Amino acid sequence: MDRSAEFRRWKAQCLSKADLSRKGSVDEDVVELVQLLNAQEQFFTTSSCAGRILILDGGINGFEIQKKNCCWLLVTHKPCVKDDVIVALKKANGDAVLKFEPFVLHVQCRQLQDAQILHSVAVDSGFRNSGITVGKRGKTVLAVRSTHGLEVPLSHKGQLMVTEEYIDFLLNVANQKMEENKKRIGRFYNCLQRALERAALSNSHPQIKEKSHPSYTHKKKRNPEKADGKGTGEENAEELENGGDHPGIDDVSTFPEDA
Amino acid sequence: MDRSAEFRRWKAQCLSKADLSRKGSVDEDVVELVQLLNAQEQFFTTSSCAGRILILDGGINGFEIQKKNCCWLLVTHKPCVKDDVIVALKKANGDAVLKFEPFVLHVQCRQLQDAQILHSVAVDSGFRNSGITVGKRGKTVLAVRSTHGLEVPLSHKGQLMVTEEYIDFLLNVANQKMEENKKRIGRFYNCLQRALERAALSNSHPQIKEKSHPSYTHKKKRNPEKADGKGTGEENAEELENGGDHPGIDDVSTFPEDA
Repeated sequence: MDRSAEFRRWKAQCLSKADLSRKGSVDEDVVELVQLLNAQEQFFTTSSCAGRILILDGGINGFEIQKKNCCWLLVTHKPCVKDDVIVALKKANGDAVLKFEPFVLHVQCRQLQDAQILHSVAVDSGFRNSGITVGKRGKTVLAVRSTHGLEVPLSHKGQLMVTEEYIDFLLNVANQKMEENKKRIGRFYNCLQRALERAALSNSHPQIKEKSHPSYTHKKKRNPEKADGKGTGEENAEELENGGDHPGIDDVSTFPEDA
Repeated sequence: MDRSAEFRRWKAQCLSKADLSRKGSVDEDVVELVQLLNAQEQFFTTSSCAGRILILDGGINGFEIQKKNCCWLLVTHKPCVKDDVIVALKKANGDAVLKFEPFVLHVQCRQLQDAQILHSVAVDSGFRNSGITVGKRGKTVLAVRSTHGLEVPLSHKGQLMVTEEYIDFLLNVANQKMEENKKRIGRFYNCLQRALERAALSNSHPQIKEKSHPSYTHKKKRNPEKADGKGTGEENAEELENGGDHPGIDDVSTFPEDA
């Protein structure tokens, strides 16, 4: 079968459909990025969230329950103030949890190589838990995932377990993560533009293709020993602390502030 | 180049090296799984962590600092008791954070198809943020990632921001996540065994290959509309709440308790 034709068909079908999201539109902070991606013949976005702070009234004992049964007490894509949280928590009956969910984006890619380039852009921009999915019909999707979350139980059986002072402190942390998340989205947009320029250049000058590969040039190893090491123990897993777990792409440079 | 030969070389090199992890050995709860994977010619593990509760004395204002500067106040792969946490927090100077880091595993795969099968096993077992990385030399690694974390700021500039009662409650949540995490590792082991049996069967009976593909049979769509929808807004991203963000593999069945 002609993969390119099938991809074009998928893309047309996807982009022609109504936005089925609750909000019904792309989040403000990622509109430009989504547009840039959808303007490329080799990509289209299938879902996105710019990042948000939310409070869920979840199941008892810290276990989340099905979304359909799970009550959202608060959702915001903007910095959050204490009073909104206090008001929201008054409505809790179960175990309410405050979460910061960072930027997430799913991009269907024409072929694996396109996904590889986008994956490198994502990791270089600080989205170190990004990964590729290849479905049965060759449907290739890059999930851009950050590691920059927060998940804080706040109430048990509807009863608040923390002080207002703590909520103030927590929101300060959450709002700063929101700020950093925004910076990373901007970084991703800029890295993507450069990568697309290089790719275009390499297509017009195939002889410099290798040089033009953003993902494969000028990489720093964060930890050469580790990169070579067996590391079946915790060593590589310790990367999680720094919000990344990418021994598979240890040749990809990362940002100090992520580490 | 002969990909299989190169893969065998990589595997021999990796498994012959000393375990460079701080612990110097594979975590008890994943030894069997790691052994099962490394016994397959198409796989080898490059890092693993069974899951752990840790307290980090991080940077001020909720931003983590480089691992080398980041002080571990407590790390345990077993359920955690309040007194240990209280003692650990007394040593905090900065912003201490309690984290539950679930199971993470990195598996280098001989070829993309091997990674696809393992990816489906991982997602079917509840590890819904798993993803594939393909490096420049075709190095193909599946990162098995859960979504079952916890990240809770506990102290600011060395000062405890929560009550002991809250810490008790929080540890109850963390320990339950640890339990659920163990169950998922067992589920992953069993799903993997079945997938390997099917793959072996399909190799001996190529005519039933399609049927034998664990990743491509008996799948339920969690949400067909969503799967087909543009969903560039929050709809798909809402999956995050349930700990998954896999529109790219929406044809893969998931476990109710994950949703």
